[in-house]
Amino acid sequence: LPIDNELYKKLEAIVGEQYISDSDLDRVCNSYDATKQRSLPDVVVRPNSAQEISEILKLANENHVPVYPRGAASGLTGGAVPLYGGIALDITRMNRIIEIDEANLMATVEPGVVIADFQNEVEKYGLLYPPDPASNKFATMGGSVAECSGGLRGIKYGVTKDYIMALEVILPTGEIIHTGRKTLKSVTGYDLTKLFVGSEGTLGIFTKIVVKLIPPPEKIETIRAYFSSIKDAADTVSAIISAKIVPRTLEFVDEESIKAVSIYIGFSVPENTKALLLIEVDGSAETVLKDAQIIIDISKNNSAFEVEKAETEEEKDSLWAIRRSISPALYAISSGKVSEDICVPRSKVTQMLESIGEIGKKYKFRIANFGHAGDGNIHVNILTEPSIPGELDRAEEAVKEIFEKVVELDGTLSGEHGVGNTKSKYLSLEIGHREMKLMQDIKNLFDPNGILNPGKIFYNKEIEK
Amino acid sequence: LPIDNELYKKLEAIVGEQYISDSDLDRVCNSYDATKQRSLPDVVVRPNSAQEISEILKLANENHVPVYPRGAASGLTGGAVPLYGGIALDITRMNRIIEIDEANLMATVEPGVVIADFQNEVEKYGLLYPPDPASNKFATMGGSVAECSGGLRGIKYGVTKDYIMALEVILPTGEIIHTGRKTLKSVTGYDLTKLFVGSEGTLGIFTKIVVKLIPPPEKIETIRAYFSSIKDAADTVSAIISAKIVPRTLEFVDEESIKAVSIYIGFSVPENTKALLLIEVDGSAETVLKDAQIIIDISKNNSAFEVEKAETEEEKDSLWAIRRSISPALYAISSGKVSEDICVPRSKVTQMLESIGEIGKKYKFRIANFGHAGDGNIHVNILTEPSIPGELDRAEEAVKEIFEKVVELDGTLSGEHGVGNTKSKYLSLEIGHREMKLMQDIKNLFDPNGILNPGKIFYNKEIEK
Repeated sequence: LPIDNELYKKLEAIVGEQYISDSDLDRVCNSYDATKQRSLPDVVVRPNSAQEISEILKLANENHVPVYPRGAASGLTGGAVPLYGGIALDITRMNRIIEIDEANLMATVEPGVVIADFQNEVEKYGLLYPPDPASNKFATMGGSVAECSGGLRGIKYGVTKDYIMALEVILPTGEIIHTGRKTLKSVTGYDLTKLFVGSEGTLGIFTKIVVKLIPPPEKIETIRAYFSSIKDAADTVSAIISAKIVPRTLEFVDEESIKAVSIYIGFSVPENTKALLLIEVDGSAETVLKDAQIIIDISKNNSAFEVEKAETEEEKDSLWAIRRSISPALYAISSGKVSEDICVPRSKVTQMLESIGEIGKKYKFRIANFGHAGDGNIHVNILTEPSIPGELDRAEEAVKEIFEKVVELDGTLSGEHGVGNTKSKYLSLEIGHREMKLMQDIKNLFDPNGILNPGKIFYNKEIEK
Repeated sequence: LPIDNELYKKLEAIVGEQYISDSDLDRVCNSYDATKQRSLPDVVVRPNSAQEISEILKLANENHVPVYPRGAASGLTGGAVPLYGGIALDITRMNRIIEIDEANLMATVEPGVVIADFQNEVEKYGLLYPPDPASNKFATMGGSVAECSGGLRGIKYGVTKDYIMALEVILPTGEIIHTGRKTLKSVTGYDLTKLFVGSEGTLGIFTKIVVKLIPPPEKIETIRAYFSSIKDAADTVSAIISAKIVPRTLEFVDEESIKAVSIYIGFSVPENTKALLLIEVDGSAETVLKDAQIIIDISKNNSAFEVEKAETEEEKDSLWAIRRSISPALYAISSGKVSEDICVPRSKVTQMLESIGEIGKKYKFRIANFGHAGDGNIHVNILTEPSIPGELDRAEEAVKEIFEKVVELDGTLSGEHGVGNTKSKYLSLEIGHREMKLMQDIKNLFDPNGILNPGKIFYNKEIEK
């Protein structure tokens, strides 16, 4: 569906000459996301209001032109990739923090606001917006609502969905609608707000986002514990939960990830380190000290051979360094790494990691695992070398086996990255035919011409349309 | 649509002779809910499994017979009332707690489990299921998921929706589907789980409910503060939030409610009491003591002329007595009371209460207000005397004016009771035409023959069908 001169002119009339382009440069710059897929849009438009987006979508809908909304394009499953060309709709100009309402602990933002910018602004009011994806320094609020980002604090504070109270949304047919209320409770009609959160840009484009804020904890304690087996680390996680402590973060790093970081930042760990846990507790000053001590004792009782607690902000930073460097470190040793984002019930993390180990052996891959042990959310990284013939096909088979195991353990294919187009073909492993049909019917209801982010979530295009 | 002998026999074959009845007694016993509306079903069936419900719904769907699911029928907006006859589907036999999974802080229950029974069982494991509607001693888990119950702890712990992770649901067309996962995070496809929560029995019948649990707080402190003006009480609420304290409960009781309770349980309050706040903080032992003291100081700074803090469990009970007795006390002085369940942004509670006062004067009603000040969720009780001619019509006009003010203040018609049939005609005040149409389309998608709980949420039957 090429965009002809007439349509281009109409789009230009909506956003203005300087905010539309079909130059090769702009098309390439809007062709990708963090999966490194490439697919060129025909045209890039950069609207600045709900009204403009409404008019663009009406036009696209009438002309059956695909529209691909994008924020920072930092998604990990192809969500922002313009698979079938059409319009790349860049929302980053809409980056205003409209209101921080201290009295009601609510804030209203536009979709293009960068998460960390918002978090910093909220902090000035002595408040906290808890969702904290690792990409927060560049990812936008709009994208994180579309994907329902999780992050490091999920175990205690939940995910993005838990904080989204109301939305202004442009439907694929161009109407501007409002869902939810700026109140802590509201049960009038179906919860369209939560339906939009995590819909991966396939049901509507958010132009205003109302989020709930909370007072931040008084104090945070940071602990790092080293283990000589994965099982000891997992047992420590279970024992912490059994002790009725819910840490703010409870991160797990395996041997392969540690090795990568050691090379990358010159970090050295005690010999025989097979796993480490990075644990943070927060709360009032008295409580966190007590909880931190309990966690140190539990770690030692579960054979941690070294436990460090940060006493200063610098030490905290240093304890975090290894966790923060994993992704770039793994990328450095395997630019072709295949990353997955599985989540299993917490009690099945050890079993899952063992299975991943076996699958790695079977397909002769090194696999690095790290992630949110408290959530059961494991980032699985298959370290491939794409130049080896057949390597990526073997990786795909390994991924399929991992997903089958995940479902067998009552887990989910994606804890926080979404489906996009990279996981859509596996979705039927987890979601039944009738359930999938319901989702497709909802998609068709909201987007009868299938113009908004086509090719995502639903694998079989024929069924989607 | 009468149920003929043939259909009756088929239903009987599904559930067994002793679990079906069309006796007058059983029909009357299944005709009402807590709104005191009455509408007789043609037949009452009491299934005991997902399979049985699936077969019943298939039969009803083929024959276009309305099906009205009901648990304890304690809802306050007509949700369980069989408006158009048909089948009353009593799910209370399905009352098994299937699993309490300590390792994953999750539990799985059937819909007929009484909330308090579940809470007590969870407590034995040293855990907490936070949603706590006032009806918890009789209301069922299924009903509370259908209505998305709130309750006293919403300000700190959120509402039912925040704890529902996965569901087994029977669609109106009879298929058994599964939504969500027993994991803390999952972003595969649209969130059907949260769409079902709060759908008021119009989209499907829950047969398994997976909920998240949390460790309970170590300690709770209970405070009661008396004020000589509503504004002082509201200012206290604001000041507590500004102090970055989020209480577990923050309940408000107005003069009219206090008077009713005084008569009802012989409770005497200091003269000139125009409002009282009942406040609970929870957390670690050290934190709550500190927070309680801050709240006492804030109350006094905002002209509380008396502040009590419970030192023993008995004192706690005594401080709660007045709050707990409000509903029966108001019922005792006005069996025809019209109760609403509005919710406004917390900062607008004073303004809302002032408007309610003016509307009361205009229509010559005494109006008693109490509720969750921390949430902005006010239970408005218009004390009518139904035997006076025109009284209920005037009450309806007053309600409409109150609702208009609520929407003007960015509030919602219902914080936790739902729409049912009692509020459906006002819903368009809050929800736009396009948004309403989307909800109706979703309803039609899930329930093409409109057999499940017809007459609820959607006012215009013609549009609904």
